[in-house]
Amino acid sequence: MTAALISSIASLRRQLTHVRQANHTIGLVPTMGALHAGHVRLLEQARVDCETVVASIFVNPLQFDRPDDLQRYPRTLEADRELCDRIGVDFVFAPSVDEIYPGAPECTVNVGRLADHLCGRFRPGHFASVATVVMKFFDIVQPQRAYFGEKDAQQLAIIRRMVADLNVPLQVIGIATVREPDGLALSSRNLRLSPEERALATALVRALRQADSAVAAGERDPAAIQRAAVATIPADPALRLEYLELVDPVDMQPVERIDKPVLVAGALWVGSTRLIDNLLSTPKATPQ
Amino acid sequence: MTAALISSIASLRRQLTHVRQANHTIGLVPTMGALHAGHVRLLEQARVDCETVVASIFVNPLQFDRPDDLQRYPRTLEADRELCDRIGVDFVFAPSVDEIYPGAPECTVNVGRLADHLCGRFRPGHFASVATVVMKFFDIVQPQRAYFGEKDAQQLAIIRRMVADLNVPLQVIGIATVREPDGLALSSRNLRLSPEERALATALVRALRQADSAVAAGERDPAAIQRAAVATIPADPALRLEYLELVDPVDMQPVERIDKPVLVAGALWVGSTRLIDNLLSTPKATPQ
Repeated sequence: MTAALISSIASLRRQLTHVRQANHTIGLVPTMGALHAGHVRLLEQARVDCETVVASIFVNPLQFDRPDDLQRYPRTLEADRELCDRIGVDFVFAPSVDEIYPGAPECTVNVGRLADHLCGRFRPGHFASVATVVMKFFDIVQPQRAYFGEKDAQQLAIIRRMVADLNVPLQVIGIATVREPDGLALSSRNLRLSPEERALATALVRALRQADSAVAAGERDPAAIQRAAVATIPADPALRLEYLELVDPVDMQPVERIDKPVLVAGALWVGSTRLIDNLLSTPKATPQ
Repeated sequence: MTAALISSIASLRRQLTHVRQANHTIGLVPTMGALHAGHVRLLEQARVDCETVVASIFVNPLQFDRPDDLQRYPRTLEADRELCDRIGVDFVFAPSVDEIYPGAPECTVNVGRLADHLCGRFRPGHFASVATVVMKFFDIVQPQRAYFGEKDAQQLAIIRRMVADLNVPLQVIGIATVREPDGLALSSRNLRLSPEERALATALVRALRQADSAVAAGERDPAAIQRAAVATIPADPALRLEYLELVDPVDMQPVERIDKPVLVAGALWVGSTRLIDNLLSTPKATPQ
C-alpha cells in the first residue's frame, strides 16, 4: 500500500471525514521529517493502535529561534515517504508553510511556567510555537491518539498539559527514546555531526547516566548530582553544556530534594549542533 | 421535550459520541446564563441549523477582572433551563468551576493584538481567558457550528481569529444584537440597573448612532466622529464613558480614515454597571 501524500488541509480533512464516518480511530504522529528509527517506533506504535495513521511532516519555522538552525534542518521528504510506505502509514501530510500560516497568527497557545526551565529557558517562545502548531495539527487531523517521543521530554510534558488544560479530546502517547549502541539518542540533528563530533556527542548521555546512578544510589541533593554529572563532560573546545537540570517530570519545575522519580535533562552543543537528551531517574526506596 | 441538564464533561462527551456516530451536526451556544432574548436568537438559529443543540451555561471566573462583577453576575439556572426546554435545546451543559478548572491552567490561548483596544485595553487578560474557556468548550463539545452575539463584537472577532489561527474545525456564526424598543442592547447585566439607571443607559446607543450617522453622511475622520459622538453623552454623575472607538471590524485596530465599514464600539459605566455596545457603520460611497 502506498501512503497518500497530501499537502492541503482541505484535502486531508475530506479524506479523514470518510474515516471518521466509518468510526475508524485515527492516530497522528507529528514530525518535522528527516525520519529515523525513533520516529519509526512512534509510527509503528500508531500502526498497532489505530485503524488510520497520519504522519505529518512540517518543519515549523515559528519554533526555530535561530535562522541557521531552520535553514540547516535536514529535509528528506522522499526517503520519509518511502519509510512511511513501508510502515503502512495511510496519510503523509506535508503542507507548505503558507498552508499552515496564511498570515502570522495572532491567537497562539501560551504554555505558562512549563517553559521556564530546561530548553524553554534558552529558547524563548520555542514551546509556545510548538504547542501552537501541534494544536493546529490536532484540529486539522482530530486524532484519537497522538504520539510523541520521550527524547523531547519538555515538549511531551507541555503537550500533555495543553491537552489537559484545553480538554483536547485525544490521548497523548509518549514513546521511549531510541539510542545508538553507544547510547546517543537518535535525533534528526545527528545527521549534521562530523565523525569527530559524533564521537564526542555521547558525553551528554554519559553525564545523564552519571546523574541517574547517583539518584539510584540514594543521593538526594539535586545540586550535588548535577555537579558530579557536569564534571563528566570532557573539556573539549567543541563541547559546551547549555544546561543539565533535575526537574519534576510533570510540571518541569526544579526539585529541591529527590524523593520521587525525577527527570534529568540536558542540552549539549557539539560544534554548531545542539543536542538534547534526558532520563527518568527513580530514587531507591528509603530503608525504614 | 426536556433539555438534558448535564454537569460532567465525561457524561456530555458520552452522549455526544452517540450523536456523532449518527453523523448528526452539533451546534454550540456558549453562554454565561441569565438568558435573555438575545440568547434566544442564538439558540433559535442553532435549532434551525443543527440536528443537536448544546447550550453551555458557565460563569467563567477567570475572565472577570473585578471580583464584585463576578459575585454580582446574575445566575438564573432554573429559568435558563426552562427557556432552553421551550426552544428545544437538546443538552444544557452547566459544569461547576472545578469541573472546568480542576487546577489553574498553565496552557491558555493568547489573543495577540486583537485585545489591544476597546474592552481589551481596560480588562487585561479578559479576552485571553474568554478565548481559553471557549477553546475548552469547543474541545469538549466538538460542534460543527458555534453561535456568538454581535453585541460582544471584540469577543466575536477574537473567536473568529482563534478558529482561523488554530484551524478549529467549526464555523463561527455571529447573531445580530437584540435591542429594547428604545435601542438599549440586551445584556444580562441590564438586570442590575435601577429604573433611573435604566433610563440613562440608552446614552451609549445614542452616541453610537450619532457616530453611525456621521459615517453614513460622509465624514471620514474617526477623531471628529468620536468627538461628536462623545459629546452626546449627558453630563450625569451616574454616567462615565470608558471608551468610544472606531476600529477595523476584523483585526480590531483603530482606523486612520474611514473608507470601508468600521466598527463603532463603546463601553459606558451606568452607576456600578458596565455596559457595552457597538454598531457596524458603512460609509456612503464616494462620488467619483
